[in-house]
Amino acid sequence: MEGEPTLRLRIFDLNCWAIRYLSKRRQERVRLIGDTLRKEGFDLVLLQEVWSEQDYSDLKVKLAGCYPFSHYFRSGVIGSGLCVFSRFPILDTLLYQYSLNGYPYMLQHGDWFGGKSVGLVIMKISGIIFNVYITHLHAEYCRDKDAYLPHRLVQAWELAQFIRHTSKAADLVLLGGDLNMHPGDVGIRLLCGWTGLRDAFTEATHFEGRKNGCTLVPDNCFTDKSELLPFPLGIRIDYILYKAISSFTVKCEELKTTTGPAPGTDIPFSDHEAVMATLHIQRQGQPAGATLGTADLADVVTEARTEVGVGLRAAQRQRYSSGRMAVLALLLLLLQAVAALGTLAGLGTEQPFPKLSFCLLAFVALGVLVLATGLHLFHTMEVKMLHGTEDQMWMALRALQERP
Amino acid sequence: MEGEPTLRLRIFDLNCWAIRYLSKRRQERVRLIGDTLRKEGFDLVLLQEVWSEQDYSDLKVKLAGCYPFSHYFRSGVIGSGLCVFSRFPILDTLLYQYSLNGYPYMLQHGDWFGGKSVGLVIMKISGIIFNVYITHLHAEYCRDKDAYLPHRLVQAWELAQFIRHTSKAADLVLLGGDLNMHPGDVGIRLLCGWTGLRDAFTEATHFEGRKNGCTLVPDNCFTDKSELLPFPLGIRIDYILYKAISSFTVKCEELKTTTGPAPGTDIPFSDHEAVMATLHIQRQGQPAGATLGTADLADVVTEARTEVGVGLRAAQRQRYSSGRMAVLALLLLLLQAVAALGTLAGLGTEQPFPKLSFCLLAFVALGVLVLATGLHLFHTMEVKMLHGTEDQMWMALRALQERP
Repeated sequence: MEGEPTLRLRIFDLNCWAIRYLSKRRQERVRLIGDTLRKEGFDLVLLQEVWSEQDYSDLKVKLAGCYPFSHYFRSGVIGSGLCVFSRFPILDTLLYQYSLNGYPYMLQHGDWFGGKSVGLVIMKISGIIFNVYITHLHAEYCRDKDAYLPHRLVQAWELAQFIRHTSKAADLVLLGGDLNMHPGDVGIRLLCGWTGLRDAFTEATHFEGRKNGCTLVPDNCFTDKSELLPFPLGIRIDYILYKAISSFTVKCEELKTTTGPAPGTDIPFSDHEAVMATLHIQRQGQPAGATLGTADLADVVTEARTEVGVGLRAAQRQRYSSGRMAVLALLLLLLQAVAALGTLAGLGTEQPFPKLSFCLLAFVALGVLVLATGLHLFHTMEVKMLHGTEDQMWMALRALQERP
Repeated sequence: MEGEPTLRLRIFDLNCWAIRYLSKRRQERVRLIGDTLRKEGFDLVLLQEVWSEQDYSDLKVKLAGCYPFSHYFRSGVIGSGLCVFSRFPILDTLLYQYSLNGYPYMLQHGDWFGGKSVGLVIMKISGIIFNVYITHLHAEYCRDKDAYLPHRLVQAWELAQFIRHTSKAADLVLLGGDLNMHPGDVGIRLLCGWTGLRDAFTEATHFEGRKNGCTLVPDNCFTDKSELLPFPLGIRIDYILYKAISSFTVKCEELKTTTGPAPGTDIPFSDHEAVMATLHIQRQGQPAGATLGTADLADVVTEARTEVGVGLRAAQRQRYSSGRMAVLALLLLLLQAVAALGTLAGLGTEQPFPKLSFCLLAFVALGVLVLATGLHLFHTMEVKMLHGTEDQMWMALRALQERP
């Protein structure tokens, strides 16, 4: 862009819902996504839930011509699911795994196994340094009683802190991904307020697509209709956010979402709609001001900190009860050991329990001891991280109060 | 420092070996450390292995007068052990937990439970932005057959990447901590080469203390003499590293280590010696060049990548064998279920096994199944992270090759 006044960048973001063995018509949809990306020729593609490295490799081969640069972020048991395809060279990458991400024993939700993270990709396009972040936060399974809210808030906070601390040499910051937060939720206000990122949907000069920019809609053939009953139009949880850091201005010229089945087919790309933004970047503009005033930002941080505090107390209770269970199991085992030794030493004239029940009881106690100890360790880590985040937020509040 | 030409900064770094219930004379030593810090009045204190938050709180109370600013980094089951005390305000903090840190089942080593991390503390001293990093890498238990080398190299790489990506707005970068690497080890060459950090010991104009700057020495009353048999003088594994980023020069005027018992007492502060550096920072100097040439740096990255590859193959073998064990246990359980159902359905005329042995066998198989599945998941994560690091290093090598 040396000499050129503007740069136009087309970005594609999609949660692909490509879980091996579980997602319906996965391979067909991944092929479809690849075909469309090849045809449309975006500048930058941010994909989430590409859980299978084979799917990524297939896409990489297919897209090698038009997106010669790509990166897959590995983490967790089944991967982070995050990958990036780009027309422009990727200079460097960094992965930050969130410290909290649900519970390993919530197998039906499974977020823990994904190793949820934020991936950073650094690119230089026409002399402009881009820090591109891609992420996928913990899902919300029940909005009324959202047990994962504290974890998602810790993730939103860590995401905001990671962006702030790693983007200081960047000219442009972009974040794309499935944030699993509705517009206006405390986490999204925290993220935008603390980083200064702007929402492409609200800033777009021109919008085309699902009403209110919804990306999870009930009339998608793969979504669970019952979950979306309170939201007949659907919800918007997939975002493209951006900001200019140095002397650049960035505007969203156009934002689009897909609207159901891909052209010429009977199926959509995924259970989510894709988000596509066209950004217009100009040198020597004025960087935009903060998205929130200091007082409003302090209110948001306080609100988030309260929710983290609620999570902290819940985690402390779970740590306590799992610890108590472990101690009880240990006591039972010790009691049985004493009884067995007593019988062996001939203190009792006859065996007090049937051998089988005695052994079964010992095994059950041992199983409970192992599981409860594991849970206790896990919840201790959870307490540590929630406590640490509460502290960091408190430090942020103090810094905000000291601002002129 | 506006108007002033120089800034002199005195830094204290110590691995405190303060493990509750395990470390000898812990409380006495923590009191001693606090007294000395109060008396000596350093500018910045970096402590590792302060595992008990109570010890940190006690130190905080004691040091409130001379070090009014402090931060404790929480992570893992028992904490990160990392804390910072400062004469100057702490503006912000960030914690990055290493993706690999030993094995939870290596209880005798216990590093996994510490949640090893790097903590970042941002400070502004006389108008100069300091990014201060504190860390503690995985211990080396057997130098000849170091099973943790790949994990420590992943940590060194993540540490270097974290420093590079978060320090771009800093004027000065400082890193203090127990790196568990000897000078000249591939990890320390990787860290210094990839970040440009310089070793205060080798750069110091004046040195006073243990020969060769050793921080783990056999004549310390708390060290395990047998572990240090091949190193009669001891080893140097605690470092203060630094670099100037923008138009500053930084020099190490003086480096000291403690030499045994603290003055006026019969015990040393810890099983490690403390490292104390006096840095001299000057504005409008020339930033120092790279610590390694491009070709040398590429050699170091290649060497580290080879070691990570060795770890990757070991992890893949462990993943495979734990997976096979889980499958075998599952098969045994299924076989038992079929036998039990057969007996219940009266297919066999008499019971083929004694009931007790049958039940015991089922419980053992169940236990093996649970444990082997857990191990399989853990080693899958390990494979993912080692693989990811290998990829990142490969990308770094490519970038190095493209350098003019």
